[in-house]
Amino acid sequence: MVPKQIKKVIKIFSDFPTVGERTATRFALYLLGLDEKSVKEICDSLVSLKKEIKLCSFCFNPFTPLKDENICLICRDKKREQTLCVVERETDLWRMEETKKYQGLYFILGGEIDFLKENPLGKLRVEELKKRVEGLKPKEIILALNPTRDGILTMDFIAKILKPYEIKITRLGRGLPTGGEIEYADEETIEKALEGRR
Amino acid sequence: MVPKQIKKVIKIFSDFPTVGERTATRFALYLLGLDEKSVKEICDSLVSLKKEIKLCSFCFNPFTPLKDENICLICRDKKREQTLCVVERETDLWRMEETKKYQGLYFILGGEIDFLKENPLGKLRVEELKKRVEGLKPKEIILALNPTRDGILTMDFIAKILKPYEIKITRLGRGLPTGGEIEYADEETIEKALEGRR
Repeated sequence: MVPKQIKKVIKIFSDFPTVGERTATRFALYLLGLDEKSVKEICDSLVSLKKEIKLCSFCFNPFTPLKDENICLICRDKKREQTLCVVERETDLWRMEETKKYQGLYFILGGEIDFLKENPLGKLRVEELKKRVEGLKPKEIILALNPTRDGILTMDFIAKILKPYEIKITRLGRGLPTGGEIEYADEETIEKALEGRR
Repeated sequence: MVPKQIKKVIKIFSDFPTVGERTATRFALYLLGLDEKSVKEICDSLVSLKKEIKLCSFCFNPFTPLKDENICLICRDKKREQTLCVVERETDLWRMEETKKYQGLYFILGGEIDFLKENPLGKLRVEELKKRVEGLKPKEIILALNPTRDGILTMDFIAKILKPYEIKITRLGRGLPTGGEIEYADEETIEKALEGRR
């Protein structure tokens, strides 16, 4: 009943993160409702995305090379401090940069440890991180993963892996977020706020 | 900070149904993580979708024309009963067909009335429906929209619009779904089950 071209597109979208078959079907029917020009434009954008964007060979941040450089603008910036901020995802790096509050270098780990998986490390760039640390010899490594259960576990794991390099390892401060209300803060946030008082 | 090619793709996916900027960003980064061949394959599938699939000019069901026909297999089937089942979406038609319990023709209305919108009828194919009814003169019109608030409103509206044609208009039976438990049934379902008892 469902034409094979539609089935194929449903299958493709089902592999997208957070998308199930039902949403994938909506996407396919949405595309079917667009005119041919718009679909062509979408395809062109996807192709440019893959063709024109490279992952920085140091930090793995996606960037647009001007010629054939392999290193992104941040990693090329000589004025940056020699600290290494380890983040989980590209979006974390982008958010940190937007704030302009950090002047050092980054490393995108690519995920968190997931003990429910056969291979808990998954696509985590642990070996790459070790190489970068060896090469850069940063004066400080900031583990800036989310303070969630999995994020904390991952930071513990990374800290252990990097211990032999004898480099100062820190984590982001914990406590009440700006604008947060003590009345509604959870137990652990209050505990961390007390610990981190100054 | 975010390369313009990534921003473009985020923008594209943000226009997909149910997708917000956050999910669109995940999609863009997911595509960036695929190899070039896979992205090419995705594009090819999207292009085939638009090129090879037509909407049936009678019922609006998407189908693959063998030559240059404009009418889908269902509408071309002479053995089908001359009843017209009005459904909201393609997926409703597919589900009905899967069950093999209906032997008539269809019409995909394309949505429900949304009174919160400036144009409540939106892309509803009301004029097309009237034309099909005039042309086909079906012996019965079955309004098979979901019995939700908006679906019921839409069926009331369509029934009113089609009244002048003096054709028998029915709706799907209401009551307890097979496997449903009376103990947990809502008030209206029980009311409808009582009304529809036989």
